[in-house]
Formats: sequence, structure tokens, C-alpha cells
Amino acid sequence: MKSRLNSNLSRSFKVVVEQGLLDCGNKSNLSILDGRRVLVVTTPTVDRLYGYRMQQCLRSRPLEFEYRVLALCESEKTINNVQRVCEFALNYKLGRKDALVAFGGGVCSDIVAVAASMIRRGIAHVRIPTTLIGQIDAGIGIKGSVNFRNRKNILGCFHPPEAVFVDRTFLATLPAPFILQGLAEILKVAVVADRNLYETVRAQGSELVKSRFQHPQDISDSVISRAISRTLEQLQDNPFEDKTLERLLDFGHTFSPSLEEKSAFTISHGEAVAIDMALSCALAAELGIMTDEDRNDVVGLLKTLGLPIWSSLVSPKLCAAAIGHTMNHRGGALNLVVPEGIGKAGFVRSSTRISSQVLQNCIEYLSRTAWTKSRVEVSSIEEQQLLM
Amino acid sequence: MKSRLNSNLSRSFKVVVEQGLLDCGNKSNLSILDGRRVLVVTTPTVDRLYGYRMQQCLRSRPLEFEYRVLALCESEKTINNVQRVCEFALNYKLGRKDALVAFGGGVCSDIVAVAASMIRRGIAHVRIPTTLIGQIDAGIGIKGSVNFRNRKNILGCFHPPEAVFVDRTFLATLPAPFILQGLAEILKVAVVADRNLYETVRAQGSELVKSRFQHPQDISDSVISRAISRTLEQLQDNPFEDKTLERLLDFGHTFSPSLEEKSAFTISHGEAVAIDMALSCALAAELGIMTDEDRNDVVGLLKTLGLPIWSSLVSPKLCAAAIGHTMNHRGGALNLVVPEGIGKAGFVRSSTRISSQVLQNCIEYLSRTAWTKSRVEVSSIEEQQLLM
Repeated sequence: MKSRLNSNLSRSFKVVVEQGLLDCGNKSNLSILDGRRVLVVTTPTVDRLYGYRMQQCLRSRPLEFEYRVLALCESEKTINNVQRVCEFALNYKLGRKDALVAFGGGVCSDIVAVAASMIRRGIAHVRIPTTLIGQIDAGIGIKGSVNFRNRKNILGCFHPPEAVFVDRTFLATLPAPFILQGLAEILKVAVVADRNLYETVRAQGSELVKSRFQHPQDISDSVISRAISRTLEQLQDNPFEDKTLERLLDFGHTFSPSLEEKSAFTISHGEAVAIDMALSCALAAELGIMTDEDRNDVVGLLKTLGLPIWSSLVSPKLCAAAIGHTMNHRGGALNLVVPEGIGKAGFVRSSTRISSQVLQNCIEYLSRTAWTKSRVEVSSIEEQQLLM
Repeated sequence: MKSRLNSNLSRSFKVVVEQGLLDCGNKSNLSILDGRRVLVVTTPTVDRLYGYRMQQCLRSRPLEFEYRVLALCESEKTINNVQRVCEFALNYKLGRKDALVAFGGGVCSDIVAVAASMIRRGIAHVRIPTTLIGQIDAGIGIKGSVNFRNRKNILGCFHPPEAVFVDRTFLATLPAPFILQGLAEILKVAVVADRNLYETVRAQGSELVKSRFQHPQDISDSVISRAISRTLEQLQDNPFEDKTLERLLDFGHTFSPSLEEKSAFTISHGEAVAIDMALSCALAAELGIMTDEDRNDVVGLLKTLGLPIWSSLVSPKLCAAAIGHTMNHRGGALNLVVPEGIGKAGFVRSSTRISSQVLQNCIEYLSRTAWTKSRVEVSSIEEQQLLM
């Protein structure tokens, strides 16, 4: 006897980009949680800055909630912390129709998503990302993950949230390095899919970093909204990554996991992505896929913004190991995302094109460029010299 | 700005019921694993009995495999053991298109399913259940789960296997209590959805237990196939339990999790399900949903087969706590499955009908019946007395 079971899971969630989420006067805010038991998970910093207002808002709504603070950072993105969240949820008697809320950065969102996917084999969760990387990347989409045995994001789930609320006013209190990390992910989607967004970041990036995305307001809103829209477009046809393992959003995510692991997570995700993007551009140029001019533009912009383009940990050996891990993760193909210009990208499918010599050339180019003053810096020095 | 992401996950898997799975001469056996890296997880007993033949079969195929033995029982159905399987998989460099194989009972299948759902956010797994409960219940369907903080199956996943291979010749070496536990799950689906299957079990159940489902062969095949078909039919429209939380397959699964927990898992799942079914029939009769005659028939059959219908741990307090847990898990409704006869069932949706007095009456009926000799036993005693 042969039988079949067909299963089909349809989900749809909304991403709301709007200011004033913690304005209790706005009665539609967080109404998705009404009538439920809610467990809010947040981090000490977010709690200190926004915990009181969040709890006030929740108290003004017809719902019951429990509020727990967990110290979470990349090295704490572990199964252990997932278990702690599960334990909170069970102690608080969270039922099948209740919800978790991730109120924090990308790590918080990851931990909560994995916990929500496991509790009663999957309950709802809502994401309120408070970092730029959370708002335009980690909090969008349906993934959750944890690190395990020093392997970045190697365990996790596809578990769509019920809603994501993006309020850029949270960014006002975010330290500049965290803004920069988010900008790296914005550049990722810009380089592969949106030249216009890239131009905006080139023109206004430094100002946006300086103002923590608070002004120019229209530019800030537009950059965040565009980055989210591009990301959602890329995810739309393949959210479970079961249709294809050729994903433009993997730009900057081939060498970066190994680099983060190698650094014991002292290099942040955004920094590692920036270095990976620079390396991928260098490879694209070396292979004749991207012009040297475009490569210099992207690498130069990363540098000008203050993002790293090189680390002494990046060696041909590390890159080769990363290629091995990546091929394992992409079903045997490399699928390295390489820009074909700015706003357009393709894939290097086989690793045979990335010889040790090619890698060596690219690493040398990047280390050389990293130590060279950028054109902006040089010209300002030249100007000073001229003035002397 | 408001955007949406729609996600849709379609899966289909086959259940193959066939003898001779470890007959290496049959070239189609396990061909689903060809060309992949495979991690087989099994238990010490299954390894001792079938490990050599399984490994021989795998060696005869064009695939690479690693074979790991884990001592697994209900009290070992933990996140820790899931992590051990994940660690094996990573050490063995299992990639996105590779597969895990669960070769063992229901606990093995649960642990492997949860691990497979987490590794790289979900890789394939194949189930080869070697127990009756695995073959007709735990191994069928798309669930995996672990116990956590003494709560039965409270964490887990919906993660469809790629295939399930059911070979009843594995049952030849299964101890009688394990056969009985499987029979309880067969009776579960029979009572709620298949009167004919129920009649067959009533007529042939003792013989099937005695022969470990090896003969009568046609009866054994038919009982296993029917139980699987009924289960798949019940799952078909609602495999993710997102359409409704009224599930006929929950018959016998309202009080049993609490009973298992309370006994620290010394009462087996099948035994707890038998007690829960007896209690649910008693409640159905007490509420006028089922006739006393039908109730006596089901309770009598459980008893005659050697399944328990009562435990001293079953108290109104335990039942009330179980009702609370169940309502939490079924979105606020009780949805107690109660037979309306034999082969047909409905739901008691609200807990208000199950008063403490009603529970007390049912528990008294069951404890009384448990201590009374069954009709079969009594009549054989009477016959003996007549012969004297």
C-alpha cells in the first residue's frame, strides 16, 4: 500500500512602517494583541529606554501581558536562551492562540521566533525591531535562528511572524556602530536590486548615520521603506527557500558567517557583511563580471561610510572553508552573489572559478585599499595642503 | 507604509506499507536516499536486532551514511537529545539536500523530526518506525515533539517527513506491551472513525497481540493499512492544525498527557491513551452521548486485550488540571472527543459540562470495572465451575 499526505501551509503577515508605535493615544497601535495573553521579551538597553512606555501602552489595551528582560547579544543567540523563553511562556501559561512579542534587535527577534516556532509546535509572534538591522533585515521575513557549536545561524526555523512594526524613532537612541551595521544591509539590497536606493545612500548615508535616521525625515523614511520593499520583493516568491537556493539577498552572506565565527562574534554581523560585499565585488571585478569602476564605487562607499572592507582574519583558507560551508548550505552549489553593476547582480554557481590565486588577488586589493586613504579623505588633505 | 508577505509551503510525502524493507535484493528499497549524505539515528535495541542488516542495505546503495545509536525512551525525549542529533548532523557535514533517518520507535521519530526541522532551518528526514505505535500513529503525520519541564510534547514542530516506510515484520521482535500500546492507538482511530476496524480488533486483537502482528497475515496487513488510512484521512485537511482545533484524533489525548506527566512517564503513552479513552467513553455515557452498552463494549474490549482502563493517579483534580492544559492547547475550547457510538464521535466543546461530580462518577465506574473480572474471564471461570 502506498498513500500520500499533502500538506499546505499558507501564511500572510503585515509589515507596518509608521512612527509613534508607543503613543498610547493611538488606539490602533498593537491592537493585534487584544484579547490575548502576551509575553514580551526585550533586552536590558531597550527596557531602560522604552520599557516603561511599552508597558504603559500594553496596560492601556484589553490584554494580559508578562514582560521579561533577557541579556541578548550575538554570542547569546543560543538554544539555551530559546529554552529560557519557552520556560517563561509555559510558566505564563501561554496558549495556542496567544503571542510572543520580540521587542529588541535582530538577536531578540531570532530567539523569539525560534521559541515561538517550538512552543506547542508553533504559536504567534509579533516583531518590534528597535535596531536598523532589525527593521530592514532581521525582523523582516520568516526566519529565526540560533548559533550552535560556533556555527552561525546553523539551527533555526521558518516561522512567519503575525506582524512586524517598524518605527524609526527607536533608532534615535541607537549607537552609531549599530546604525552602520544596518546601513550595510541596506547597501546589500541596494547593490543587487536598487540603484536608486544606492545613489541615495551614497548622497545621504553619512547624514543618516549622523542623525540616526531622524533627518532628513523624508530621506530616512524613503530609505527604510525602499529597503524593506526590496527585501520583501526578493522574499515573496521563495520565503521558505524551497523554490531555489539562488537568492540575491545572500549577497554579503557567503564569507561573512565564517568570518563572524572565526572572530568569535567580535566582528558584528553588519561589519562582516560589509567585508563580504567588498570581497564579492572584488571577485566580480577579478572575474570580469563587474567593472573596476563599479567595484571601486561600492568599496569606496563602504569605506567612506565607515564600514570595514577587510579584516586580517580574511585569508584564502578562511574563504575556502566558507565556500565549503556555503555549498553545503546551498544544496551543493556555491551561488555566490556577484554584482553585475550597481543595482543588478548574478550568481557564480561553481566554486571552480574562485581559485586560490583569484582569492589572493582580491584579498590583496582589499587590504591595500583598506590602508589607502579614501578619495574623500585624500582630497580634503590635498585641499588642506593647498591651503597651507 | 503597510506591506504584506504571503508565504505558502506545500509538501507531500508518501507512506509505503510493504514487507522486506531490509531485503537488499529489492533495488527500489530506500532509493529515496540515493546520492545523498544520510545520518541514521537508531536505538540500542533496534541496532542490536536490525542494525547490521540496515547498514548492509545502506552500503549496497549509492549513498554515504553515518549511523548513530542513542538510548531513547519517553523520559529522554528532550531538547538535549535533539541537540545531540544536531551535533552528529553538523559533524557529519549534512547539507541542505541531505537527510536524516529515524530508525526506531515513536521517540526516535520525534527527536529526529525536531532535529531535522531545526538543522539549517529544516532538512529532509525519512521515518522507518519499528514499533506498532510508530507505524500507525507517531511515525505518520508531520509532527515532532519533545517533553520540556515535565510537560509532555509541549515543544516541537510541524515538519513533514519525506517518506515513511512501514514494514510490519519489525514487529515480530517487539515485546507484547509495546504491541498493546500500538493497539490502543489503533482502537483510538477505530472508535472515532471505523466501526469495521473496531470489529476486526475485537475479533482478532488477542491473536494479533500474541503473534506480534505476524499472523493472520491478511488480518494484520488490513488492520495496519486501515489504521494508517484512517489516520491520514483525518490529517489530510488539517495537518498543521491551523484550520480547526476540533480533531477526532485527539480521542484519548485529553487526560493522557497529564497522566503520563504525573506518573513521571512510568505509565506508557499507549496505556495512558487507553485509560483516557475509557474515561472519555464513561463521560460520553454519563452525558447521554453514548449508550451504556457501547461504553461497556469499548471499556470491556480494552480490558480484555490487556490494556488498563484506570489508574489510581486518575483523580478529579488531575482531570481538572488536564482540562485546563487542554483548553490552553486547543485555543480556549475543550474539544473533548467523545464517541457517539462505535465508529462515530463528536466533541464536548465546553468544560462546564464536565462537573467535578460527573468526573467522580466516571472515575468510580472505571475503578469498579477495573477490579471486576471481565465477562470473558468470568464466563471461563463459570465454565470451569460447571465442568467441576
